[in-house]
Amino acid sequence: MSALEITARHRVHGGELCYARHDSAATGTAMKLSVFLPPGEGPFPYVIWLSGLTCTEENFTAKAGAYGVAARLGLAIVAPDTSPRGEGVADDPAYDLGQGAGFYVDATQDPWAPHFQMETYVTRDLIAAVEAVLPLDGERRGVFGHSMGGHGALTLALRHPQLFRSVSAFAPIGSPTRCPWGEKAFTAYLGEDRGAWAAHDACLLIEAGVGEGRFDGILVDQGLADGFLETQLKPELLEAACRAAGQRLTLNRREGYDHSYFFITSFMAGHLDWHMKRLGKSRVNSRVPTALF
Amino acid sequence: MSALEITARHRVHGGELCYARHDSAATGTAMKLSVFLPPGEGPFPYVIWLSGLTCTEENFTAKAGAYGVAARLGLAIVAPDTSPRGEGVADDPAYDLGQGAGFYVDATQDPWAPHFQMETYVTRDLIAAVEAVLPLDGERRGVFGHSMGGHGALTLALRHPQLFRSVSAFAPIGSPTRCPWGEKAFTAYLGEDRGAWAAHDACLLIEAGVGEGRFDGILVDQGLADGFLETQLKPELLEAACRAAGQRLTLNRREGYDHSYFFITSFMAGHLDWHMKRLGKSRVNSRVPTALF
Repeated sequence: MSALEITARHRVHGGELCYARHDSAATGTAMKLSVFLPPGEGPFPYVIWLSGLTCTEENFTAKAGAYGVAARLGLAIVAPDTSPRGEGVADDPAYDLGQGAGFYVDATQDPWAPHFQMETYVTRDLIAAVEAVLPLDGERRGVFGHSMGGHGALTLALRHPQLFRSVSAFAPIGSPTRCPWGEKAFTAYLGEDRGAWAAHDACLLIEAGVGEGRFDGILVDQGLADGFLETQLKPELLEAACRAAGQRLTLNRREGYDHSYFFITSFMAGHLDWHMKRLGKSRVNSRVPTALF
Repeated sequence: MSALEITARHRVHGGELCYARHDSAATGTAMKLSVFLPPGEGPFPYVIWLSGLTCTEENFTAKAGAYGVAARLGLAIVAPDTSPRGEGVADDPAYDLGQGAGFYVDATQDPWAPHFQMETYVTRDLIAAVEAVLPLDGERRGVFGHSMGGHGALTLALRHPQLFRSVSAFAPIGSPTRCPWGEKAFTAYLGEDRGAWAAHDACLLIEAGVGEGRFDGILVDQGLADGFLETQLKPELLEAACRAAGQRLTLNRREGYDHSYFFITSFMAGHLDWHMKRLGKSRVNSRVPTALF
């Protein structure tokens, strides 16, 4: 682990977008990320954004259109890369495996295990690195993501409910054990034994009662013109699992929207508002009256 | 000229983003562009966005964060590519000349003249192509842009005031005859004779009274942490020209903002609102009460 190094800063919507890097012990590589800090002093509540297949730490920063709303809400956003990268890191020519496709699990299989430790990276090294040097409030942390990152948000929230107070997803892979993307990645990263997969499938986690009662709701938006809807995403499985387990789910089916960031940006404000409602008011702001009067 | 062909459609913020192509007689090439149509029937007032160096028809679509506001305003946005492209089209390895750097002028010099006819492309072929098939109101058309495209917006509006009812710019090249980017491009496209340059320099056009009285104001936003501010953009020249000519200019100097799309997206809403105020209410909407009562 090395300290977070800020590599670029951009003023945006009155706040600041920082690109950063650090060395992760979990992945054994340098990892890149972006952080948006709203105007003000902090510490700020924040959400971690987990991107989808092929993305880097940059897709969200350029395409999501999130920072205007986040600035108004006083919400910070941290967006890591989607996998370890670099020479000496295993890869695959397919877009849905290897670099750019870490699936937010800790790989147990060769050649992936030495570096593809994205669950530990996000839940331990990323959080430690950003909270050590940036004005982020570790008691008010949420997680959301898109597609592969929607799967990551759901499973990391359910598996680590002590870390996250809010969770939402855009077009998540609902049940990776039951779709080609998930079956391929889990076979590669976790092995042929499907018994090891269930602990990383949002539907199976919810049905097993993992994280039960820790989230007052899960917010999911899904475009109905999404080309991956029926083969890969299958929100109906998530819906059924939540119904069976008594987990409250707000599933918005959006007519005409596809799988792109044009869909994400259209409903970003609603997700940020969802998280902010659950992450509460800034302790700093709420302290000001106490100190003054 | 061929008819506009829509190559991709994305629902965004309740409207539709279309990528399109057509063959331009002016450039003698296929040209790509994007069009955002807000929800509703149209015909919609619209603004043409002219991008900066190295951009294509895609940068604005992904990075500007404009469509949520445009959807609420009922404003369409057309964003062309920044130059002709392809095999047989002259190019230069530098980022600031050739493909991706058309400067919105009609080149008179070899090897550029055969295809680099971007002024005629935008003011004739682009407008004709989009208005022929899309619900755009040719009587309510504005123009804006960034950097090289800010220069383009200012000069095309001044040179063709009958085409545009509103004009604004983000970090425009204020006076291309007096900065390295402009001097290099104008030498290449327009020749060594500086006498031919003046007709494409916003400051010199304003000082000469071209377009006088046709625009009730010009809106410019400029970041003060912009690395090109002093060497290339020089808003003080534009300010002086407008003052001398009695042209109203709203020049917002923005502390801490750089030359990137993070700056653009931060002040996009204000620019769209500026144009909408000058392009008026939708004739369709204003007709509704007349028809009903």
